[in-house]
Amino acid sequence: MAEPVDFSRIESTLLAAADAAAAHTLPLFRTGLSVDNKLEAGFDPVTEADKGAEKVIAAIITDAFPDHAIIGEEWGTSGESRFTWIIDPVDGTRAFISGAPVWGTLIGFAIDGVARAGIMSQPFIGESFLARPGQSRYQRAGLSQANRTSGLTELASARVFTTTPKLFDTPQLARKWAAIESATRLQRFGMDCYGYALLAAGHADLVIEPYLNTYDIAALVPIIREAGGAIACWDGSEPTGGGNVVAAASQALLEKALDLVNRA
Amino acid sequence: MAEPVDFSRIESTLLAAADAAAAHTLPLFRTGLSVDNKLEAGFDPVTEADKGAEKVIAAIITDAFPDHAIIGEEWGTSGESRFTWIIDPVDGTRAFISGAPVWGTLIGFAIDGVARAGIMSQPFIGESFLARPGQSRYQRAGLSQANRTSGLTELASARVFTTTPKLFDTPQLARKWAAIESATRLQRFGMDCYGYALLAAGHADLVIEPYLNTYDIAALVPIIREAGGAIACWDGSEPTGGGNVVAAASQALLEKALDLVNRA
Repeated sequence: MAEPVDFSRIESTLLAAADAAAAHTLPLFRTGLSVDNKLEAGFDPVTEADKGAEKVIAAIITDAFPDHAIIGEEWGTSGESRFTWIIDPVDGTRAFISGAPVWGTLIGFAIDGVARAGIMSQPFIGESFLARPGQSRYQRAGLSQANRTSGLTELASARVFTTTPKLFDTPQLARKWAAIESATRLQRFGMDCYGYALLAAGHADLVIEPYLNTYDIAALVPIIREAGGAIACWDGSEPTGGGNVVAAASQALLEKALDLVNRA
Repeated sequence: MAEPVDFSRIESTLLAAADAAAAHTLPLFRTGLSVDNKLEAGFDPVTEADKGAEKVIAAIITDAFPDHAIIGEEWGTSGESRFTWIIDPVDGTRAFISGAPVWGTLIGFAIDGVARAGIMSQPFIGESFLARPGQSRYQRAGLSQANRTSGLTELASARVFTTTPKLFDTPQLARKWAAIESATRLQRFGMDCYGYALLAAGHADLVIEPYLNTYDIAALVPIIREAGGAIACWDGSEPTGGGNVVAAASQALLEKALDLVNRA
């Protein structure tokens, strides 16, 4: 079936929405701002930036594609459609509130549950990672270049990211992280969406995280796949909907990582 | 005794050296580059960026202050003087080689073993954190503003950074990290020098790390102190020379953190 989708319009909507979001996030980055806790137990900050940015992103999408569905981190789901926009206005809220420029605005576009286009925008640095069918690219100031993963196929050489080892919060999960950690060359923490973007651009080889929501990952799926990378849930299923996810610089590396994680 | 030091010249030398270093680091950031291991066991990357940047920094310092001593991460110590320049051309080499813009070029200036001026430069973002007696400031593009710590005095509200929990690699150290982790509000990993700079600018409240070398910390000492923060080794001694270090947004918070660490 031919897809009745104009990806040029999808892309210009992604870019316009990310720009509009920046007007709500940047003025609140590296300033004092009130943080309230979404979860009574634990720490899950929601900022004004998050709320304001999601509203403006959703408004731009609704204006351009009134029949499409929207899933947002802050405001939930609206509409029902094969075509779904999936928004995390500030992915990496802990980075955001501690002044670290490794958060991003994520907007994905999925058809029948599989993300096909998306943007990860980091407006403080002024860069974005952007994908549509057939291309994944990096943009900053006048620069626009194709994203290309490292293509690495061996775990022993891999640079692996995860947001924090504390995500692996059961003995079984901890064993899985320990297996990845001891099989790989270099581990880094604290990156959230930024780690997936760096993987797409060839600077990291593996990202592994449990418990992702669809809005944490959907935008990043096409950015990785169109750059030559591979991404899946630990059971091999499509990751656009969230879950326990591995992203890798190649299909071969993904399979080795999945094998390791599932045996641990 | 009056110090025979012209801090305007010290500052202009710090800025010139950081600028010159960027010409050696930026072209190698986010590109393929060869990584060799300094340590046979473990992973401690040295990049061409590191080596080239330190050479040019040392040359600029030697030209301006031929009688001063220089301690560099890559090339060791040269000269002997009350006045010592302490260089880490790329602090956060793991960040550097994995494309994360949270590394920095560190240059400190110490008198009789106490750092009095310093710069942390992050040239990809185009920002620097800079201190001399009486001021600590942040610079980016046209912007120049004073750094001011949060002034926080309570552990329970603190945002704490450490590069990785794996630094705490003995049972005794692990207990100390666990004590800090459970006493504080939010923990972030993966920041290297960037965490100390964010503390000076009020975005983090506590940084704790063991095993620092003088070149990891000297430049950051005045950036933190002149912003209203406090920094010491765990035994309360001067941290310019390295060791196990805590930096805090206030003297009161430092004392509480030291007390906790030393009891754990």
